[in-house]
Amino acid sequence: MPEFLTLLPPDEARVLLLSYLSQPVPDSESVDVPASLGRVLAEDIIAPHPLPDFQRSTVDGYAVGAKDTHGASDSLPAYLHLVGEVPMGDSPAFVISTGQCALIHTGGMLPNGTDSVIMLEYTQRTDADEIEIFRAIAEGENVIRVGEDVSQGQTVQAKGSLIRPAEIGGLMALGIGRVNVVRKICVGLISTGDEVIDPSQTPRPGQVRDVNSYTLAALVEKSGGTAKLYGIASDQLEGLKNSAAKALAECDLVIITAGSSASTRDMTVDVIRSLGEPGVLVHGINTRPGKPTILGVCGGKAVIGLPGNPVSALVNGYLFVVPVIEKLLGLLPRPKPSVQARLTVNLSSQAGREDWWPVKLNANQHSPSGTLNAEPIFGKSNLIFTLAAADGLLRISPDATGLSAGEIVKVYLL
Amino acid sequence: MPEFLTLLPPDEARVLLLSYLSQPVPDSESVDVPASLGRVLAEDIIAPHPLPDFQRSTVDGYAVGAKDTHGASDSLPAYLHLVGEVPMGDSPAFVISTGQCALIHTGGMLPNGTDSVIMLEYTQRTDADEIEIFRAIAEGENVIRVGEDVSQGQTVQAKGSLIRPAEIGGLMALGIGRVNVVRKICVGLISTGDEVIDPSQTPRPGQVRDVNSYTLAALVEKSGGTAKLYGIASDQLEGLKNSAAKALAECDLVIITAGSSASTRDMTVDVIRSLGEPGVLVHGINTRPGKPTILGVCGGKAVIGLPGNPVSALVNGYLFVVPVIEKLLGLLPRPKPSVQARLTVNLSSQAGREDWWPVKLNANQHSPSGTLNAEPIFGKSNLIFTLAAADGLLRISPDATGLSAGEIVKVYLL
Repeated sequence: MPEFLTLLPPDEARVLLLSYLSQPVPDSESVDVPASLGRVLAEDIIAPHPLPDFQRSTVDGYAVGAKDTHGASDSLPAYLHLVGEVPMGDSPAFVISTGQCALIHTGGMLPNGTDSVIMLEYTQRTDADEIEIFRAIAEGENVIRVGEDVSQGQTVQAKGSLIRPAEIGGLMALGIGRVNVVRKICVGLISTGDEVIDPSQTPRPGQVRDVNSYTLAALVEKSGGTAKLYGIASDQLEGLKNSAAKALAECDLVIITAGSSASTRDMTVDVIRSLGEPGVLVHGINTRPGKPTILGVCGGKAVIGLPGNPVSALVNGYLFVVPVIEKLLGLLPRPKPSVQARLTVNLSSQAGREDWWPVKLNANQHSPSGTLNAEPIFGKSNLIFTLAAADGLLRISPDATGLSAGEIVKVYLL
Repeated sequence: MPEFLTLLPPDEARVLLLSYLSQPVPDSESVDVPASLGRVLAEDIIAPHPLPDFQRSTVDGYAVGAKDTHGASDSLPAYLHLVGEVPMGDSPAFVISTGQCALIHTGGMLPNGTDSVIMLEYTQRTDADEIEIFRAIAEGENVIRVGEDVSQGQTVQAKGSLIRPAEIGGLMALGIGRVNVVRKICVGLISTGDEVIDPSQTPRPGQVRDVNSYTLAALVEKSGGTAKLYGIASDQLEGLKNSAAKALAECDLVIITAGSSASTRDMTVDVIRSLGEPGVLVHGINTRPGKPTILGVCGGKAVIGLPGNPVSALVNGYLFVVPVIEKLLGLLPRPKPSVQARLTVNLSSQAGREDWWPVKLNANQHSPSGTLNAEPIFGKSNLIFTLAAADGLLRISPDATGLSAGEIVKVYLL
């Protein structure tokens, strides 16, 4: 068999694949900011004006000139003349001179002549227009300066940023209502295998429903892509070549999930070779599940052959498909969501191979601090429900020959 | 001032609020499984048939009766008569008797008369129809039994499960193409404050754009809800009461973000009291940011008053709004995505108060194992861009008076 002549470690295989891809896709689209959640910025965002664009109070109190409070204390208060109240949402109609102050609310605009705000707690109103001040404050105290959040012309959000709720807030604060985002990455999905049927059909003995087109489509969608399904190709080379060529022309990335027999796995290699240069980069990866994964690039686009069994296909989707989508989006690197947990059993692994175990996370009843237990789900890798029952994936590094019960491990959330 | 007479710890405040809410909302809707990503199951899923529903091989090899391999070894192979090849996607047309075997591919259906599969590696074809077997195998070896993934009638996915790519795969594998999901939770959002204007307008001095309606809408959307914006209420009590009553009638949950002045914060309390029993449950929480947060329940629906400053509003949205949405969805508890990182500086905190710090996560150049550094972003809590620059939030527990530089901390990803 021609397979697995060289088994690359997954990290090296991924780096090799990504090195052939240019980033990001050049196309962007303009969307309303409130609808941009989860998209990736296609442009740097430059602040059109400072934020805030007026000096604001951060407390309820009296706007003063700090020098008028120098030396003030409980035993020796300063006395200031109250000139008025700063209206919310408007500029004060008065100017404060030495020896004067104005009542101000959180968020209010400092009147001219003031540079700081003394909190109500440290003051007392002695009569209608006299305020006792019991503390000295520094210039700028309890004030947000003009441009303290962002200054005019500052790059506030970089191209490649993921747009989360906070980014939406930042854009709206600057009055930016539309934004250019990278268009979604189109991922073509082809299933193969004479035993594979459309899920809407009832399988005859020996047949199984296509699962991979749908798990991978969901993964693509979650990761900033749109999936385009090309259906189930038969185990005939010509049919698969035609589907793959069409998908490659129409999409940014093509995934072929192999039928489970060796012949269809080999067929994926032949198809990738036929689609363009450089063709197959990696054939066989030192990981479990996922050894038969094939990574290729044809005419600048990635073509990935995933094993037919659903768990392998999905786990290797996380390992190889998501990073390609993120590179094509130009997404800046972000930490992967994970949790720390205590492994409940020993797990053995073959040195040199990277293992990924589906695990269930359970509250540890003996731990008041909320430590989680990571309980591996044992099952042959063909069983999709082992993954549906899992909260995350546990990685055993190629250096290790296993992990011990009781060890604190990192579980990547699915 | 009537505020902050009792400051509850955030965990207690949340438990109290949730205890008044029934779960989940009773309404569900039927959706196509491929479009159900991120929704919550409104029903238990029962397997209509076993999976797999035929005995499948997990390897390429020969289907045999295990007893025919007993005693076989390199020096003393067993010899079996090759009857045929199992077609992919069909039931074999032959039956295997003692002394016979059939070529089978991964995923192929075991012929009657066989119970296990010997891998190709441990065999040799001596002539057209004789196979040498160099190993003894056990019954069931390299075979997935009928129902080994799931058995008929088994509850494979529980009501309240989040639908992820793996769940979609499980449903498709069972031929379940539509599924009942909990309808999205409708969240009404009202901003208040005379200084707050619609983001499309240009602020005059003293005015700021409404940020909270949009950050919270994005958070709601991310968490399984739909946001309904009721605009900006003025600082007049009657207007706010009317908006809030309308929102309460139309939505499952209402959020009022206060204007920043003390008078509008107090107004939120009065409005919640006017909307129904029991009214205000918690007024002031021992957390930073977010001390002025108000939690109420009116006629069975939560009404939450959040501080007007954008960072407070969003952080407290994570702490209180998301858990309410998850309870109304009936979502089963799941671990919150986090990462471990090394704190770069000392952080002090007031004993008894829970602090949430926005932090940026950076690769630690001195750590080959990929440890991250957590670098707190210092800035007044009013500054939305401190949060836009953050990867996550770091919690300082009420028990602690701070954290030390170099400590490994848990950062919740935003």
